[in-house]
Amino acid sequence: MKYFVTGGAGFIGSNLVDRLLQLGHEVVAYDNLSTGCRRFLQAAEQSPRFRLVEGDTQDTAALGAAMRGAEVVFHLAANADVRFGTDHPRRDLEQNTIATYNVLEAMRANGIRRIAFSSTGSVYGEPEVFPTPETAPFPVQTSLYAASKLACEGLLAAYSAGFGFQVYIFRFVSILGERYSHGHVFDFYKQLLAGPDALRVLGDGHQRKSYLYVQDCLDAILLALDQAQAPVNLFNLGTDEFCEVNNSIGWICDHLQLKPQLNYTGGTRGWIGDSPFIFLDCRKMRALGWQPKLRIQDGIVRTVDYLRANPWLLETRA
Amino acid sequence: MKYFVTGGAGFIGSNLVDRLLQLGHEVVAYDNLSTGCRRFLQAAEQSPRFRLVEGDTQDTAALGAAMRGAEVVFHLAANADVRFGTDHPRRDLEQNTIATYNVLEAMRANGIRRIAFSSTGSVYGEPEVFPTPETAPFPVQTSLYAASKLACEGLLAAYSAGFGFQVYIFRFVSILGERYSHGHVFDFYKQLLAGPDALRVLGDGHQRKSYLYVQDCLDAILLALDQAQAPVNLFNLGTDEFCEVNNSIGWICDHLQLKPQLNYTGGTRGWIGDSPFIFLDCRKMRALGWQPKLRIQDGIVRTVDYLRANPWLLETRA
Repeated sequence: MKYFVTGGAGFIGSNLVDRLLQLGHEVVAYDNLSTGCRRFLQAAEQSPRFRLVEGDTQDTAALGAAMRGAEVVFHLAANADVRFGTDHPRRDLEQNTIATYNVLEAMRANGIRRIAFSSTGSVYGEPEVFPTPETAPFPVQTSLYAASKLACEGLLAAYSAGFGFQVYIFRFVSILGERYSHGHVFDFYKQLLAGPDALRVLGDGHQRKSYLYVQDCLDAILLALDQAQAPVNLFNLGTDEFCEVNNSIGWICDHLQLKPQLNYTGGTRGWIGDSPFIFLDCRKMRALGWQPKLRIQDGIVRTVDYLRANPWLLETRA
Repeated sequence: MKYFVTGGAGFIGSNLVDRLLQLGHEVVAYDNLSTGCRRFLQAAEQSPRFRLVEGDTQDTAALGAAMRGAEVVFHLAANADVRFGTDHPRRDLEQNTIATYNVLEAMRANGIRRIAFSSTGSVYGEPEVFPTPETAPFPVQTSLYAASKLACEGLLAAYSAGFGFQVYIFRFVSILGERYSHGHVFDFYKQLLAGPDALRVLGDGHQRKSYLYVQDCLDAILLALDQAQAPVNLFNLGTDEFCEVNNSIGWICDHLQLKPQLNYTGGTRGWIGDSPFIFLDCRKMRALGWQPKLRIQDGIVRTVDYLRANPWLLETRA
């Protein structure tokens, strides 16, 4: 099978590329290397079944040409910078909404009709039901990031209804693991490396969050594509637990054997649009036989180990 | 008060312009006259408190300049061509999603923070709950049109969270009345004018739909802006009844004293993304003291009378 992976040089994308190659498939990764790392593809680039195309999802001609011959598209390329959305509102519109439209149109031009898409649990806004199921009450958006991801979901579903696409939408909690290169564990680790005596924490530390290990995430995605055959397949992806940011800090500091002073910025949210509680109901995905292998604590520790073993990554994100 | 109305030369927009002028306000209408009619603004243009700016929502410079000094924006400009979305998928993206982003950015540049937006009951896709409340289960989109309107809703809510906007989102059923110039009553009337002996009906005629008279719609919008003061105010707008397309045909034909042969194209949907049943729960809006004055049948009859009295309108939409 030939797969096309947008954002294929990114954290999740490059792990997916490796997995697909291990399974014997052909893979074209499409990435503008703005936040993706060529170095994540070192192993992949040894394979004759792999090709990296450096290109932007705004470049519709290059996108359409690179996609030719693929049978399934994984669309992971996105602006994933949730916190600073209000500094540059056009970015989510272009890199998420319009980019997804471009991917769908390139698929149509190439006669490709199967797509998997990385959405986010943030589309639930600030839900009142926990754990939050896929059929939660129609939410009100609280960030430009989530609003743009919801716009993408709508496009995928409409392309399914209008053009017979088969679409897979995954609403992720935060993903952790090897090649993780932005988010709170990354921020905390970087801070502690620069000064192990103090840690600045956004909000009051009581925000409740969910995390999923990247390999568990990929297991779920591949299983869903194999097992679920509706026109629109929508799955929450997370673990059956959540933790407080303070728990996470404890695990990180214990693992690094540090006791920094914690300086909270205060408030129940880390930033505008930060959700104080994310906990997804993943029974629909579990019903297909999937379950995550790593608990949140293990995923966080493994991520810290990865960052410790890869200091170059922190240098490239200075 | 100074109001800015995008799509101000359109069906609903021009009726809103007239209403705002009657209430003594200043109004700037912004319209590219692609589907809007200058003739709808004949009365408005007599007023020194009114100005029409011919411009496109894609022209961000013109949009920003025209908006200067306004206190509230009514964003009604849109591609409302639901049926042919799959013929030109870029149109909903540009004229709805990106246009709304442009309007929000123009507001931000001008320091305007209050906006009312015309969304659609189609964002509920094919719901399982009737009448469908604003908090219905998170829907799956079934048309490019509704997907783009949902994307706009998300942008408005995110601008509320991120930039302190106060937003009003109205999910309309189909609106009828004076200056109505597209949709099923228009299509049927035009067909019967061309040949009174036969009528081609999309689907099986059993599609259940809801309609609201345009003046009732405007009553609701203005009342909501006056009474509801949350950051994000979301209201369904419809009547407490629905009808079959066949009922509507009966009322139209009785009123015109015609007995055409009905030729059904068949199937439960008139077109891709057509919802076989639209019936909104409007208790939230009614709780503010609003109620529609016209029943569906009366709205349809009044619309036919309007079309009969204004043959020029049918000529411009040949």
